[in-house]
This record gives sequence, C-alpha cells and structure tokens, in this order.
Amino acid sequence: VSDDRTRSYWGWGYVEEHPDEDEVQALRERLETEFGFPELDLVDAPDLADVEVPDPEIEAPAHLDFCTQEKRSRVHHTYGDGYRDKVLGVRGDFDAAPDIVARPESEDDVADLLEWASDERVAVIPYGGGTSVARGIEAEVGGGFAGVVTLDTREMDAILEIDEESRRARIQAGALGPQIQDGLAEHGYQLRHYPQSYEFSTLGGWIATHAGGHFATEYTHIDDFVESARMVTPSGTVETQQVPRSGAGPKSNHFMLGSEGSLGVITEAWMNVQPRPEARSRATVRFSDWEGAVDAIREIAQARLSPANCRLLDRNESTLFELADHDDHLLFLGFESLAGAGSTRENLSEALSMCETHGGECPRGPIHGDRESDEETPEDRWRSAFIEAPYVWDEFVRLGVIFATFETSITWDRFDDFHADIYEGVTAAMDDACGTGHVSCRFTHVYPDGPAPYYTFMAPAERGRELEQWRQIKQTAGDIIDDHGATITHHHAVGRLHQQWYERETADFQATLRAMKGALDPAGIMNPGVLVDDTE
Amino acid sequence: VSDDRTRSYWGWGYVEEHPDEDEVQALRERLETEFGFPELDLVDAPDLADVEVPDPEIEAPAHLDFCTQEKRSRVHHTYGDGYRDKVLGVRGDFDAAPDIVARPESEDDVADLLEWASDERVAVIPYGGGTSVARGIEAEVGGGFAGVVTLDTREMDAILEIDEESRRARIQAGALGPQIQDGLAEHGYQLRHYPQSYEFSTLGGWIATHAGGHFATEYTHIDDFVESARMVTPSGTVETQQVPRSGAGPKSNHFMLGSEGSLGVITEAWMNVQPRPEARSRATVRFSDWEGAVDAIREIAQARLSPANCRLLDRNESTLFELADHDDHLLFLGFESLAGAGSTRENLSEALSMCETHGGECPRGPIHGDRESDEETPEDRWRSAFIEAPYVWDEFVRLGVIFATFETSITWDRFDDFHADIYEGVTAAMDDACGTGHVSCRFTHVYPDGPAPYYTFMAPAERGRELEQWRQIKQTAGDIIDDHGATITHHHAVGRLHQQWYERETADFQATLRAMKGALDPAGIMNPGVLVDDTE
Repeated sequence: VSDDRTRSYWGWGYVEEHPDEDEVQALRERLETEFGFPELDLVDAPDLADVEVPDPEIEAPAHLDFCTQEKRSRVHHTYGDGYRDKVLGVRGDFDAAPDIVARPESEDDVADLLEWASDERVAVIPYGGGTSVARGIEAEVGGGFAGVVTLDTREMDAILEIDEESRRARIQAGALGPQIQDGLAEHGYQLRHYPQSYEFSTLGGWIATHAGGHFATEYTHIDDFVESARMVTPSGTVETQQVPRSGAGPKSNHFMLGSEGSLGVITEAWMNVQPRPEARSRATVRFSDWEGAVDAIREIAQARLSPANCRLLDRNESTLFELADHDDHLLFLGFESLAGAGSTRENLSEALSMCETHGGECPRGPIHGDRESDEETPEDRWRSAFIEAPYVWDEFVRLGVIFATFETSITWDRFDDFHADIYEGVTAAMDDACGTGHVSCRFTHVYPDGPAPYYTFMAPAERGRELEQWRQIKQTAGDIIDDHGATITHHHAVGRLHQQWYERETADFQATLRAMKGALDPAGIMNPGVLVDDTE
Repeated sequence: VSDDRTRSYWGWGYVEEHPDEDEVQALRERLETEFGFPELDLVDAPDLADVEVPDPEIEAPAHLDFCTQEKRSRVHHTYGDGYRDKVLGVRGDFDAAPDIVARPESEDDVADLLEWASDERVAVIPYGGGTSVARGIEAEVGGGFAGVVTLDTREMDAILEIDEESRRARIQAGALGPQIQDGLAEHGYQLRHYPQSYEFSTLGGWIATHAGGHFATEYTHIDDFVESARMVTPSGTVETQQVPRSGAGPKSNHFMLGSEGSLGVITEAWMNVQPRPEARSRATVRFSDWEGAVDAIREIAQARLSPANCRLLDRNESTLFELADHDDHLLFLGFESLAGAGSTRENLSEALSMCETHGGECPRGPIHGDRESDEETPEDRWRSAFIEAPYVWDEFVRLGVIFATFETSITWDRFDDFHADIYEGVTAAMDDACGTGHVSCRFTHVYPDGPAPYYTFMAPAERGRELEQWRQIKQTAGDIIDDHGATITHHHAVGRLHQQWYERETADFQATLRAMKGALDPAGIMNPGVLVDDTE
C-alpha cells in the first residue's frame, strides 16, 4: 500500500485528510453558538522535531534486527486514538514512549523477541494499527520491567491462502482493513467487518479486542468470522483447529478472542469470507417519542429479523451530527441478502410495520437495491460522518473540547433506568467539571435480550486541566455502568482505561485469567496491566 | 413431573415405551434378511434384584444428608447411554457404580459437598439426565481417590424467573427438556433447543457439553441461548454478567460451556427464550447424486439462507430408517420465522432453486404453514424415528448387534476425501472385526465453511466380544477424524470416550486447560479424566 500522504504522528490518519482551518473555525463557531460553549482557542501540536522522548533504557540484542529506536517510530507507537492519547499528543508529551519498536516479519521473529523479553523481563506491547481508544497499547507498565518493546505486527500483512470452496481465507494479523478488502475483492469476496477504525486497524487487533463491525445484528463482530487462529506466546505457538464448529471442551478460539495482547501475539487466522450481498433494502424512520423507538427496535430484534443496519440515533445525536432538519429520533434500517431480494423486502416490510405500531414514520418509504439514487438520505450523511468522525475528534482536542465516547450492553428490562441514570449522571458530571456539556446516544448493535447503547459526550475544558475534567466524567460513566451490572465495554476493549471496572465485573474469574496467563506467559511480560494487573 | 412409568435401570427412558417383543422380532428379521446379518439371539438384562454392585468404599458425613447409597440409585447413575454403557448394562456389570449418589437441593448443598470432597479427595461426577454417549458421567476415575460421588442435579429443576421484556428466563440446571418446555409455554415462550436426548437430559448437561439442537443452522446450539450462567466450583461460585454481549476480555461463559463437569457444577443460567414461530415452510428434496446434494447444501449454507432444517440423509441412512421407497439421498429443508411468512417462502424458494441446479427434485413441492395435512411426509417419518431411535438402540444391544454413532465437523474443501476415507475405513474395520456391517451418514448441522456429518454404523457382534469389536471400529473412525484434522466431536462431548483424540487436537491448549482447572478445582476432584486427564 504505497501512499504519498503523511500519517499524523499524534492524531488520526493522514495529515492531509484533516479538516482545513476554515472547517475548524466553523466547528468552533458552531460549538460556541449552537452549544453555548465559552470562547475556544485553537492550539497546534508541536512539530515532531520539537517533541522530546526519554532516552531508551534498553537496547535490543543484535539478532533481533527488526527492532528500531528511531524517534518517529517510538513517538508514533506511544499512544492509541482515545481522548487522553490525543490530549497528550497535542501537548507533545511522549514520556510514555516505548524503548524499542519491533517490526517482526515472521512468527520466528516474534518467538525470538518473546524469548529474549521473557529472559530479560522486558514488557512486550502487541500493536496492530494503534487505534485503541482504551489505552490498550500504551507502554505504561509500572515498575518491575527492564524496559518496554512495542511489537508492531504490520510487516505481517499478507493474505496467504484463499479456499473458495469453504469460503475462507488465511490472513496475517498485521493486514489493515483496506488491504483485506482489496485482496479479497480480487476473488469476489469480502470479510464484511467494518469497525469505525477500519482504515487503520488490523485483523490481529480486531481479534484481540472482540471488534464490533458496522452492522447491527448477526454476523458483525470479528468473533463471528474467525474459524481458527494462531498466536505466538512466550510458552510456544498455539493454533486452533480449522473446523466450522467443535463441541470438544472450552472453545480454544476464545482463549485468543479478547485476550488483548495479554497472552501472546496473534499472527494469523482463517477467516470466513463471503461475496458482496445480492440485494439490499433500507429505510429511515423518524420517531418523536424515544420510548416508541426503543420498543420498535426491541420488537425487531426479538423477531430475529436480523437487520444489517438497525442504528437508532437519539435527537441529541442526530443534532450533533447535523443529520436532520427536525428534532426527531432517527432509525436507520437496512437488510441485506446473499441470495435473492425477496427476503430483504419482506423483512424490511415487517420491520417498518413494527415501527409504525410504535409511532415511527417513514416519509421517504423503503429503498430497494443499491444506492443508485442521487438523493442523499440522512443515512448517507450519517455514513460519511461516521467515517470522518475520528478526524474531527482531533480538532475538538485542538479546540480544548473534551470529546469522548463510552459504550456498553444491557438487557431491555434494565435499559430505561440505566439510560436515565447515564443522562442525568453524565450531565451533572459535565456541569460540575466543565460548567456545561452535551451527551447523546445511539444504538450500535441490538440483540433479542438488549441493546448496545453508545454515548458521546463533549464539554469545554480548561486548557491544562482537560484530563482531570475528562477523568471525572469518565469515572462517573464507568461507575454508573458498573452499578447497573452492565459491561464496561461492548466492543472497545478493556485496555488500561477500563481495567478497574473489568476487575469488578470479572471478579469471579480473575483467578482463572491469572492461571491462563501463567500458563502462556509465565514471566508476565505480555501487555502488563491489561486484563490481569500485576503492575505496581 | 409425576409419572407412573418405570425408568429402565440400564437403558433408555421408560420400560413401557420400549418396542414390544413383536417389534423386536421384526427388527431381527430385517437385520438378518435385509442386511445379511447372521442369526441373532436375543438376551435380556438381568432383573435389578440380581445385579450386584460393589460395596461402597466411603460414606458421606451426616451433614450431607442429601446423599444416598441405595442400590437402585447407584446402578442408575453408573453409566450413560452410549453403546458400551448399554452392553455393560445388559450384562448386569455395574462394577463401576459410584459409592454415593448425592442429590443436592441448593447451591449451598453443592458447595458443602465439594468442600468435603476436596478435603477427602473424593472424586465428584456431575450428572444431569445421564444421557452422555461419551462416557462423560462414568465413575471411572483411576486410582488416587478415596471414592466417588455422583452429583445428580435433578432436585434443582425450577424455572426461577421470567423476564418477558428481555425474553429470557432463569432456569436451574437440573430441569429436563419437557419441564423447561412446559414451564415456558405457560408464558408463551420456548427455549427452542431440541437435542435428541431432549426428554431425559438437563439444561446443565446441555451447557456443560455444547449440546447441539435439532435445527441445522443459526440458533440451535445451547451456546447460542446462554446469556449468563452460574457454576459452583471447589474454589467458590462463579457467575457471568447478565448482558447481551460483552467485549471485555475472554468470554467468561466459555469457561463453563463445554467444561463437562471438570471445573465445577453448573447450577443455573439465564437463557434467551422466544415465542413459537409464526410461519414455517418446508420441503423434501431427492438427489440421485451425492455430490450434487452436498453442493446444493453448501450453496444454501453459504448464501446464509439460515434454514431451520437442512438435514441430508444419504441413501444408506434413509434405507436404515425406512424413510423412502427409492434409493435417492434425501434432504429435508425447513424455514421458520418469528414474524410474517414472507421470508420463509422466499428463502425456501431460493433454496429449492439451488437444489434444482444440482439435480435435486421436489415432487411434493413446498409446504407452507403448519402441518395440517394428513399426508405423512418422509420428514415426519424421520422425526418419529429420530425421537424413538434411542429406544430401538437398546434392542440392537439385546440382539447382539453393535449400533453406534460418531460425528464431527470439517471444512468443505476437505469433506469429500474425509467422507470417502470414513466409508472405506469403517467398512473395512467392520468387515475385519465382525465380518460385515453397515455405515450411513447424515448432516446434522451445516455452516458456511463446512458440514457436521454424523455417521451411524451397525455390525453383528460376537456375544461377549462386543466391546472389543466395537472398540476396534471406533478407534478406526476416531483416527480417521484425527488424521483429517477434523474435530472428535461436534456436539457429543469429549467424556472419557474421546479423551485420547481430544488431547491430540488441543495439544497446544492442554497447559492452559490444566491451569484453569488448577485455579477452579485445586484438588482435582471434578470429573477426573475428562478434558484434563491426571488419572492413573
């Protein structure tokens, strides 16, 4: 993948793709006038040349010749793409830079590195695309380590085999979304997994974090596409069977899925692939009543109509993204089929009548087939905003605005109370910390037993105190999630950011996790502080 | 569930439901004439009064007052329902009887028992309905234990809560299929999980063994319905979160699913439930060509049409079950919907045209709606045979005929070679061990990347040498599965029967499994010899 564009050393994606200064000024004006934020000042991140990184504490031995200590590489591998990461980046604070960045080209390279690191007690942070929003790839490992190596898997990015008969492909962990898409498209297939980070995140990262795709139900999480996988651990390489399903013992794939680099380095996987859908049907539904919208979605999910898209945006969210000229809640519905168009029409029609029952209106009517129409729908605008959002987030940080998200999943019977508590608690926390703020909600995924609500909050920060203010709001949100027995993350992963709540929700299983880690990573060098925290 | 019928102490289900002597004679004649078996003699199991069991080696302490050493109970809890179990049963050989049968009424009872057993090094065999066909509940634990307790969960069989809003129910592990069905039906719901053992197996057993349901795709395995579960282990009680889905770390439910009693005793679970389907469409398709049938099913699975039923019976299988007056291969197709009938019609129509492309014929045409027709279809006959089969298996044993099954899953690209090797290898093994025999195949479940083929073999045994002959054939089948990298079980579980092959297919993970067991069962008392084998 050759490209003339420059990767931002501190923020999202390519420098050239960021909003230009006019657009940033427009964003500022909008925040000040529409959201009543105080006057905002725009700062720039320092030039990379002016960024200082600590001297490395260790060096890699000569035989690990895929290691570098070059400054740009160490800086680029210091943080992920969460709010805190970007604040530190704009400040030019890269004190947490790893000592070494390793770019192994083979499993043997990985094994050699892990052997040396285990012997020397060097922490190893597996790193794919670096898009973690949960501090999952940060070289913050506490004391007790001789140093830190960030292990970047991007040199291992090939599609190694395609089995057309079984519709599966063997893909290396370092392949990015677009590489996988392009490589499979040559054979008429796709992985059909589109997380928001798609352009800059890797297969290995997706597997390590239970990545959630863009689709609302059924085959959307990366877990749903993994047939078998390989992981190099300090205790050796482990591989699961290439079978559609096994009933023999605990599912071995689940020792890798969600392991977040704490057990080993995922190197490749056999993934189920599929052709492009033959048929699509979609519609946008408006609800003036939030409860009606929630009830309609519950009914659709419980009827197992399996919409590919079933994304509900509350009015705060559609206002934030400027999607509608009204203040209704918006529901994007879509159905896809790998066979004929009959079932997508039928299922959309069933779903729309459920919406109608609960007060939903669909003025534009259903749209069948591909998007050949010139007319831009709110869903199209949403899609663009969804893809561009990470670029815009960087500009919020430059403007001194806290902009962050959190997400969970919870059963329907507890959702109403939970949702009310989140709105009340997060609003109060923003008022307290920042004087004002804005919170909004969408459903990213829905299940028969409950939704996965996703919240975005933004508030004007005091320059220099941003992280303290953000932490106060984040702590409030995490505690409300925990109080309601919801999960601290539906698809963003645990990382170091969510470790405190993860330990509470898995208290019964911490000894089991620790034992598993002990078996695969006896020296405790793999991503210390994540899932099992023995750091000081 | 009160019932006047008598449970067979050595075989399947109720004594009164077994085929009568005329039917058994008809079966004998059919085996001799149609299958060319040598003259068969019919034996009876001894009266229970004449069965001898060894004196117990231990007694339970007084505070565990839910324990018994009554002979009938010890005999009834000695074996599962596999071929070997029935042979030993007919012989009246109950040397493997447990010393004690415990029937705890609460989690506290379970915890008390496990504490005593850990202290005294008494092996504990969790037991639900006792329908294991993989020696999963047998008190065969090697040396090193003071004795053996079989822990029967059947006293804990209540539906504790129903959450209609989230469509889920909290059910105790000892509930049998019909208890769950009846209890949920009062509220308009069902679990929609119908393994062949349904009538006599329990929720806890299903969860512990990744039980596979009757349906061919999508929501059929018990795994697909478990929202959260509780397990009492020697190290304490563990419980997973009640959330639709979490992205936080390795999925904790998967520490229980498939654990086969080797880590603890599953006591209850929150299960997703659903109403009865609103619409059904079905058809029976005939294929004269096996490859055509396989290709059609592959196409249907890969188009993700999600048939509820997609059961292919090869001609040997439909002959065995007397389902057709021709020697074609039979495919039963069925679609169900919780909403309107539109999508089931459309999907069946798509599937039938895929069948046609590959030479399939559907003379009767599609049938929509419920089974109101008087005409009995081959599928109806199959359904009856499927439910009655375990009763008939007992009669094969009485006739001195080896009758057993094995199953696996494998990717499509490897299936043809594998299937040919199984037919050749198992036929040769039967010829070698028994002089003749009959093998047949059906697909129980299908996935986009491969089928789950299920094989039945029968051969005339020499009375007294049955187990040696059966073992030779079983070893051949297991080794062929292993050679092809398929799994030793898709839904029958590992038990003691499959442990040798399980250890090979999970060689990379044996240390991890051992570590998990060490954390939850430090004294190693839980179902010794299963999954992790430290028995002598």
